[in-house]
Amino acid sequence: MALVVQKYGGTSVANIERISNVARRVAKTYDQGNDVIVILSAMAGVTDSLIALAHQAVEEPDKREMDVLLATGEQTTAALLAMMLRAKGYQAQSMLGHQADVVTDSAYGNARIIEIGAKPLRKLIDRHTIVVVAGFQGYDIKGNITTLGRGGSDTSAVAIAAAVKADVCEIYTDVDGIYTADPNICPKARKLKSISYDEMLNMASLGAKVLQIRSVGFAKKYDIPVHVRSSFSEEEGTMVVNEDSGMEQLLVSAVSHDKNQARITITKVPDQPGIAAKIFSPISEEGIVVDMIIQNTRQGGKTDMTFTVPKVDFKRTMQITQKVAGEIGAEEVMGDTDIAMVSAIGVGMKNHSGVASVMFNTLARENINILMISTSEIRISCVIEEKYTELAVRVLHTAFGLDDEETQV
Amino acid sequence: MALVVQKYGGTSVANIERISNVARRVAKTYDQGNDVIVILSAMAGVTDSLIALAHQAVEEPDKREMDVLLATGEQTTAALLAMMLRAKGYQAQSMLGHQADVVTDSAYGNARIIEIGAKPLRKLIDRHTIVVVAGFQGYDIKGNITTLGRGGSDTSAVAIAAAVKADVCEIYTDVDGIYTADPNICPKARKLKSISYDEMLNMASLGAKVLQIRSVGFAKKYDIPVHVRSSFSEEEGTMVVNEDSGMEQLLVSAVSHDKNQARITITKVPDQPGIAAKIFSPISEEGIVVDMIIQNTRQGGKTDMTFTVPKVDFKRTMQITQKVAGEIGAEEVMGDTDIAMVSAIGVGMKNHSGVASVMFNTLARENINILMISTSEIRISCVIEEKYTELAVRVLHTAFGLDDEETQV
Repeated sequence: MALVVQKYGGTSVANIERISNVARRVAKTYDQGNDVIVILSAMAGVTDSLIALAHQAVEEPDKREMDVLLATGEQTTAALLAMMLRAKGYQAQSMLGHQADVVTDSAYGNARIIEIGAKPLRKLIDRHTIVVVAGFQGYDIKGNITTLGRGGSDTSAVAIAAAVKADVCEIYTDVDGIYTADPNICPKARKLKSISYDEMLNMASLGAKVLQIRSVGFAKKYDIPVHVRSSFSEEEGTMVVNEDSGMEQLLVSAVSHDKNQARITITKVPDQPGIAAKIFSPISEEGIVVDMIIQNTRQGGKTDMTFTVPKVDFKRTMQITQKVAGEIGAEEVMGDTDIAMVSAIGVGMKNHSGVASVMFNTLARENINILMISTSEIRISCVIEEKYTELAVRVLHTAFGLDDEETQV
Repeated sequence: MALVVQKYGGTSVANIERISNVARRVAKTYDQGNDVIVILSAMAGVTDSLIALAHQAVEEPDKREMDVLLATGEQTTAALLAMMLRAKGYQAQSMLGHQADVVTDSAYGNARIIEIGAKPLRKLIDRHTIVVVAGFQGYDIKGNITTLGRGGSDTSAVAIAAAVKADVCEIYTDVDGIYTADPNICPKARKLKSISYDEMLNMASLGAKVLQIRSVGFAKKYDIPVHVRSSFSEEEGTMVVNEDSGMEQLLVSAVSHDKNQARITITKVPDQPGIAAKIFSPISEEGIVVDMIIQNTRQGGKTDMTFTVPKVDFKRTMQITQKVAGEIGAEEVMGDTDIAMVSAIGVGMKNHSGVASVMFNTLARENINILMISTSEIRISCVIEEKYTELAVRVLHTAFGLDDEETQV
């Protein structure tokens, strides 16, 4: 008898047949003696259609109203699943963000959860009602509807699991777990039985795209075991857990890559205090997330500054940067979108040196030039030319001993 | 400077272009110095699609969840219109049923408004914000989403107009007002400048279908002038007002018809106290609305009972009635769906006799047999064979002096 939170993503609820499949899974979990809270995304494609509809209406849709519009997607799936469960004879009830008391800030389109009042959920769970919560949505203290941004339903799920002190938060998606590398480009990639929150945090930001990064932060903070698994099979997936929970201790757990970054360089920036703020404040004010930043000292009080931003924000960032470059008297702004980032990730790195040199040597052996390097406690990332991405991932995967020996290539 | 409530129906918001047309109208009203509250329906067809989707999911959708699902329709249009108004530079904001504090009972799918807390609306109106309210929806005291049934947005509009003490409630629809008869079958029908609440109440239930009957009751109770007009033209429509407000005083204001009724007769019912309750309680428990009821006394303590129900409920009502007939020892149950009801309506009738005889004579002259008769203070209705409907309406329209002399027929 456990309290299980299950989250089903857009592809898992893409049509009536798949929602019906979800209903069967939920019912099965309940029949095994568990209490169940289900968090749903909108049907795959619906959020995009709604965004397109808004843009058909006006050029730049108001953010508050966009959230009111987008919230209908999850409202629809939640109502449909609750109906199906009731038709099967289960006590079930849908709840919208405000009904489940998901309180957020007022950052429409990308709101952060401030708190979840567990009471309304608890009340239903205590009566063993299956609660179907519309994911992705909340409300601010003024009662306005807010949404949590792309992948926000993951965060809804983990935050709700934390609020009700669930035993596990299962994230059902269209992949069957977290792999040591993208199996599409690295046939020897293995599914991980478990991975730490910190590794996952580094994976997500690097494009593993299985879990919204914010949800992992939540899971870590409240120590909620997250089980990433497929809604299309019965197989166990990957547990995302605290690193002390008896995980396999590998030096490197995974090799990830990200082709969605672009690189911008400003040359001959006057090397004065406050100059970095002058460059990056206007970028972050536009809501653009800068990932890597590298600064090389040069002669004569001038420095070069290189950074990466998501490819979709490249054009806008170039414009902003060019304007700033003029103001601060820098020489030139150069941009490059044909880059990729490959990373080796592993909590094991903390206590081992040598990972970096394995990485650099492996890439060098293949004549892959490293354009930028960035390291954290449990991650080493190299920016390379985009065309070498697949090759780099494969050779690094082998170099770090991650290859699945049973795979027939 | 007035406070204007405007309600736009499904055809007026059927697509982005039409919602954009609504935005222009709302803006114009606001620019003329008025405060505006807009109540919207779902895009034409959307509610039906959602119902179909639910039935694709389960045979008999749970009513609570159906309301959660249906509420998305008005949520969508409200968000889109608010976006458009904001894009035009107006201060505008959408509000859902619970945000506008539309409190209803818990009769999902057909909830009744208990009260509307005017405060949230007032707060925005005092700042001269254009408020766009999702019609058709409210919430019960437990916070569950409810919907008000077919045409419920009319009721939302009038109830909100009453709550905020609006100067007028404009109902924008695809017809340009209330006519003395259906212009499709009676080419000489004239648009009425005004009509009383009571006449409208009788019209609506008889199929005029322009305004939801419940909304008219609300308007009458709180004395809210309702202006029924077209969203596709600038012409004045018809004012629905108190009968003392200097209306044209005609003996008969309109001739309406209703082809959506079916007739059921139970013969040789034992004429005992409580027998009517035995027959009609199980029908009303099923939510079926019985309109006319006629009872003829017969010999030998037996009576015939005839009544009408909406055609869509005919089959179900027959089943119920046949069961009851067996229990109470009646002889036979007969049903007939090929009937229609034609009615003459007018507050002028109150103080005049002779309307009934004009009606009966006119129908007799055309050899139209009257199957049932029912009268109220301001209405006389006759059930006739369906095939005579159009003819009956035309000859009655002429007989009551309603013909538009300018119409070229």
